[in-house]
Amino acid sequence: MREFSERIVPVILSGGAGTRLWPLSRAARPKQMLDLTGDGSMLALTAARVADQGAFAAPVLVAAADQAEAIEAALPGLGMLILEPVARNTAPAIALAVLAAAPDALLLVLPSDHLIRDATGFRAAVLRAAPLAADGWIVTFGMKPERAEAGYGYVERGAPLGEGLFEAARFVEKPDAATAAAFVAGGAHDWNGGIFLFRAETMRAALAVHAPDILRAAEAAIAGATRAGARLLPEPAAFAASPAQSIDYAVMEKAERIAVAPVAVGWSDIGSFEALHNVSAQDGAGNVVVGPGLALDAQGCLIRSEGPLIAAIGVEDLVIVATAEAVLVVPRAQSQRVREAVEALNRKEDGRWT
Amino acid sequence: MREFSERIVPVILSGGAGTRLWPLSRAARPKQMLDLTGDGSMLALTAARVADQGAFAAPVLVAAADQAEAIEAALPGLGMLILEPVARNTAPAIALAVLAAAPDALLLVLPSDHLIRDATGFRAAVLRAAPLAADGWIVTFGMKPERAEAGYGYVERGAPLGEGLFEAARFVEKPDAATAAAFVAGGAHDWNGGIFLFRAETMRAALAVHAPDILRAAEAAIAGATRAGARLLPEPAAFAASPAQSIDYAVMEKAERIAVAPVAVGWSDIGSFEALHNVSAQDGAGNVVVGPGLALDAQGCLIRSEGPLIAAIGVEDLVIVATAEAVLVVPRAQSQRVREAVEALNRKEDGRWT
Repeated sequence: MREFSERIVPVILSGGAGTRLWPLSRAARPKQMLDLTGDGSMLALTAARVADQGAFAAPVLVAAADQAEAIEAALPGLGMLILEPVARNTAPAIALAVLAAAPDALLLVLPSDHLIRDATGFRAAVLRAAPLAADGWIVTFGMKPERAEAGYGYVERGAPLGEGLFEAARFVEKPDAATAAAFVAGGAHDWNGGIFLFRAETMRAALAVHAPDILRAAEAAIAGATRAGARLLPEPAAFAASPAQSIDYAVMEKAERIAVAPVAVGWSDIGSFEALHNVSAQDGAGNVVVGPGLALDAQGCLIRSEGPLIAAIGVEDLVIVATAEAVLVVPRAQSQRVREAVEALNRKEDGRWT
Repeated sequence: MREFSERIVPVILSGGAGTRLWPLSRAARPKQMLDLTGDGSMLALTAARVADQGAFAAPVLVAAADQAEAIEAALPGLGMLILEPVARNTAPAIALAVLAAAPDALLLVLPSDHLIRDATGFRAAVLRAAPLAADGWIVTFGMKPERAEAGYGYVERGAPLGEGLFEAARFVEKPDAATAAAFVAGGAHDWNGGIFLFRAETMRAALAVHAPDILRAAEAAIAGATRAGARLLPEPAAFAASPAQSIDYAVMEKAERIAVAPVAVGWSDIGSFEALHNVSAQDGAGNVVVGPGLALDAQGCLIRSEGPLIAAIGVEDLVIVATAEAVLVVPRAQSQRVREAVEALNRKEDGRWT
């Protein structure tokens, strides 16, 4: 394994609009811009997590073009802001960052809207994995699965590669419930948290083999890019020609020399109001009340308002979320169905409410 | 029984603030000002119900002083507007109207916030009872009890006095649940709907016997009253000196020659969101959706917004009511508990939300 001393470049992906936390998140205000924990926006927390200037360079953001102003306002110290003219999923976004970086640079790809409670433990795990990445491996960070979540990707640990590092034996995206339960019970699988560490050249070479169309489109987009200050604007038509694929599908499930670094750092993607309820401080009756709210004889509820006062009386295990524009009421256990409401509203209301 | 030909003077009571339909009703916008049925405000519907100029004179309103402008805007044709400087319940309010009227006038007292679906049937019942009232009886209109409602007053029918008219044998205010159930099963009791027909002099004499303090206070308040156009402003200190009593307690439960006229006219006091759900048009799943709303796999819900869109997913038998200022979520069967929320908010928020 090679010596390692250079600073790691965080690559923060801020592409998705997201509908799972509607009406808190809306098309014009994606989840990463929300303060879900009371500590700052998910984006700001993500950047703060890798702000140790001894170990990390200024972050590179890959973001939807319409988020440019919001991101610059939130992150004054960013190193580069790559603006995607259209959304093409994570593989093309990562390809842009790879091509904009020095070939030898170590890149740490981070979703902009995940929670990690133990930032210190996370940074330690990243630094522990850095020599392996410098040696040409692509490292994904595995999150200990807390439940049989069918909506996630799983990665199976193979042969050990060092302290807290394993060869990735297999990736399974969104298994059925029985398979997910078996994974959790078996103890050999972790959630694939979407956080990756690799040398830019390693990923470029993997893309060349496993996703040449994506690499070609990104190369053309970067070749035709314009630069304005920290902003880099890839050539729109070239980028739009890229297939839309996740990095898991395009590379991780196919490439050689993929490693997994299992961590226990209080990770959550806060992918539903149920998850938000789980990671929030609850009162004695299991309620989470944020904003003007009143819980009278209510239990297990998530009550959160950015506008009107919410008075909840005698209800159990409900999500009640209000903004000035919209109110959502759904049982906590069905909170993934928020997407259905957003889709129904988009069909009949032309985006007015979403 | 005397002949009867003069026009009846409607006396509409618009005093209460009401908390039972919060947040639709608020201190500054009482229930009678709300359009609960899509046909106009409860106050306007009440006045329209007795707008037949062959049978009824222009209405006298007895209202809280701070409602003056709203009432004049809603009812341009009112005959007199008596403004209560303070709220003293219904007996003092009725005493003011009695003293402001000609002694021989037939007065029909009407709450301003009740629903009567069959206005024609109601007017016919009033006219049928008029000769009895002209003859010196106080007539209350009895509503067929639809359920064992413990929150209402009940009146027991005694000896028949004519077609659809009975002597009132007994009044029972807010019986316990078992007694209410026995009343409903027995068939001899009606709900006391708070609608009364009597000659002014009859009521004056009854007040003199059974509630002399109230009559004296009202007399002093009228003696010192000032008049401005249709407005009559009783002398505040004199009126404030009156005991606060309901007309049921002060007179109906005690006086002689009280009659009951049972009617079946689609009456509801819409005293809770459960009652509002009952009187509203429901979709095939039992939902009532008024205002911007979306019911996805919801059943038996009252979903009503005057502001934000409400999206309800997978919930049953809930009341979800939103305004720009507040959102209420409560099981329909517990909708009488709204009062608790209002009280809690008043304690801690100094009326900001109520």
